[in-house]
Amino acid sequence: MNNKRIIIIGGGVIGLGIGWQLAKAGAAVTIHERGQAGRGASWAAGGMLGPIAEAHIDELDLLKLSNQSLERYPEWVDELESETEMTIGYRAEGTLIIGINPDDSYQLKHAYNLYKDLGLNVEWLSGQEARKIEGALSPYVTAAIRCETDHQVDNRLMVQALEHAYLGRGGVLQQNSNVEKIVIENGNVTGIQTQDGFQDADVCILAAGCWSGQINGLPDSMIPPVRPVKGQMLALQMREDNMISNVVRTVKARYPMPVYLVPRKDGRLVIGATTEELGFDTDLIVGGIYELLHGAFEAVPSFYDLPLIETWTGLRPGSSDNAPILGKTPVGNLIYATGHYRNGILLTPITAYEISKLILTGETPETIAPFHLDRFSDE
Amino acid sequence: MNNKRIIIIGGGVIGLGIGWQLAKAGAAVTIHERGQAGRGASWAAGGMLGPIAEAHIDELDLLKLSNQSLERYPEWVDELESETEMTIGYRAEGTLIIGINPDDSYQLKHAYNLYKDLGLNVEWLSGQEARKIEGALSPYVTAAIRCETDHQVDNRLMVQALEHAYLGRGGVLQQNSNVEKIVIENGNVTGIQTQDGFQDADVCILAAGCWSGQINGLPDSMIPPVRPVKGQMLALQMREDNMISNVVRTVKARYPMPVYLVPRKDGRLVIGATTEELGFDTDLIVGGIYELLHGAFEAVPSFYDLPLIETWTGLRPGSSDNAPILGKTPVGNLIYATGHYRNGILLTPITAYEISKLILTGETPETIAPFHLDRFSDE
Repeated sequence: MNNKRIIIIGGGVIGLGIGWQLAKAGAAVTIHERGQAGRGASWAAGGMLGPIAEAHIDELDLLKLSNQSLERYPEWVDELESETEMTIGYRAEGTLIIGINPDDSYQLKHAYNLYKDLGLNVEWLSGQEARKIEGALSPYVTAAIRCETDHQVDNRLMVQALEHAYLGRGGVLQQNSNVEKIVIENGNVTGIQTQDGFQDADVCILAAGCWSGQINGLPDSMIPPVRPVKGQMLALQMREDNMISNVVRTVKARYPMPVYLVPRKDGRLVIGATTEELGFDTDLIVGGIYELLHGAFEAVPSFYDLPLIETWTGLRPGSSDNAPILGKTPVGNLIYATGHYRNGILLTPITAYEISKLILTGETPETIAPFHLDRFSDE
Repeated sequence: MNNKRIIIIGGGVIGLGIGWQLAKAGAAVTIHERGQAGRGASWAAGGMLGPIAEAHIDELDLLKLSNQSLERYPEWVDELESETEMTIGYRAEGTLIIGINPDDSYQLKHAYNLYKDLGLNVEWLSGQEARKIEGALSPYVTAAIRCETDHQVDNRLMVQALEHAYLGRGGVLQQNSNVEKIVIENGNVTGIQTQDGFQDADVCILAAGCWSGQINGLPDSMIPPVRPVKGQMLALQMREDNMISNVVRTVKARYPMPVYLVPRKDGRLVIGATTEELGFDTDLIVGGIYELLHGAFEAVPSFYDLPLIETWTGLRPGSSDNAPILGKTPVGNLIYATGHYRNGILLTPITAYEISKLILTGETPETIAPFHLDRFSDE
């Protein structure tokens, strides 16, 4: 491996995670990042590790992958924290999916039955039982599903730790490096073209999130079907007497817009997120802020009195079927690790471990086999 | 005058305005400002010049002063803009006070009759007529009062022009200068104590806004009854197809919270403001943001889709009777110009012209006579 020059396009959690694992194995890795490492979707995310809360009946492959990644999180956190001596804010309090009106209760019950059928670890709670766990919940809460294993991590701390770990293993990070073209000759990538010229590569990994479809040089059939899906977010500062410790999510049955509330260890409360199809627009639209706040107040009324400390938007890398695009492509030495949509933080360990294994061994691990690019041409 | 050393405590629009007029007359003026000039309430304000919209039946002296200041605004703008070659964003489109439900209409009619009795320049409009003037107004608008003479100025541009004009006339500006004490001996101010030591003064003007009551050295009976009244504000960016040009204000009859919408020439829309009694707290509370947005959407629904470009809070210098405290005090050479509450920008010209006249002539102009500090001890 030591002789192979590996180029990773994209320095978010996916690119950094793969790069770290490869550098650790002794590979010569260079990440080209268009901006600052980890400041795209990786930075904007909520950090929820919620395969159950994100589960859909028609996305069972994704649910399986998500659960496999969640199972590897404790190992991932241990490895990253011990190697960097940094904390990444992993919290195991779990998640409450709450209903705040009778419509929500029906929808929750339906979801609960599905989760049970799938063998997931969920518990049904009445509104009273939910308020025993989180005393700040609204008196309107009618029912809740408790997902004890849906945890969270502080994604911004994880970005910083990953960068540190990657650099510590000798990985090279080229920031503000604009990859204009992936150069393919005779069915193999020979390198990439950046504003600084041509860079040789023996292996190329495309991990550029929502920008993955924007890079020149790929045959049309290989352009990954990834688009930006905007999300608006807020952060409030909780007080000791006005706090939650579980992740709290609402559902979309009637109104308002569903939201999630993610309490960090330092009292920061992350509220998200809108889902907007507006291309690369990153404006913070007041209607979105209003709906997020409305949703938050319906869940936890006392948050009305908390200070706002940050507003931001991010662009999720949404794929055509909401699942990531992982692994080999028709170009022999070009590997994809993109399109993680709403689950990038959750799927980082499995992606980093399995993609690096693929590159080191040449064999596709079974876990990621269903997520090849060619599933789209099969349709 | 040239020999007298004048110290002004406070470099907001009031201090800068008085200082500019005095320096122009040849006086030696030094302003001591605790932070950066004009970055307190002067910067946070909405810039409405609205004596009518702010009129109250039990504040007729204030209404008269406000109207006198408004009348001097064109002269003030001309003088300031020609002297500095800067623009201060004066707009004369006027103000619409709108009702968005039947309760509001009743309240508006009551206000309209009062304004007519007071001889103010107001016009009654139906909802349809109001929408002919501002096409973006909600279809729910039931009625409106048009105040053609309630104008606006861009207060931040005015701050910058005033500082420029003041310095251009040789005024001295000490920023980050913390006035710890006003030193009074034998019934006269001898100077002030700052972190840099004692500064001699022949005349001292207290124009420190909501901090005016915090400075040591004044006898208890002379501490101005001024307190901070917090306001939260937002700015959105209007688009060419989603814009208003009049100031639009809602009233408080039923709900939501009344708001004002101030459109700047550059498309910036200022939305304000909450009124909060929280001392010197300047946190941005999400409940306030939510209510401001709610009020704005009720008035102009399409603003729901505009981007947020700024959030901020300010501290109004509220006096016990909502009117400013102007002119002479029991200490011969100590002059007050503080407590302008919601009307500081509107009252800047009259305050600057009349307080500087008082200092230059020794005579109290009739306009400001009702606003002496001693009105509080009279009660």
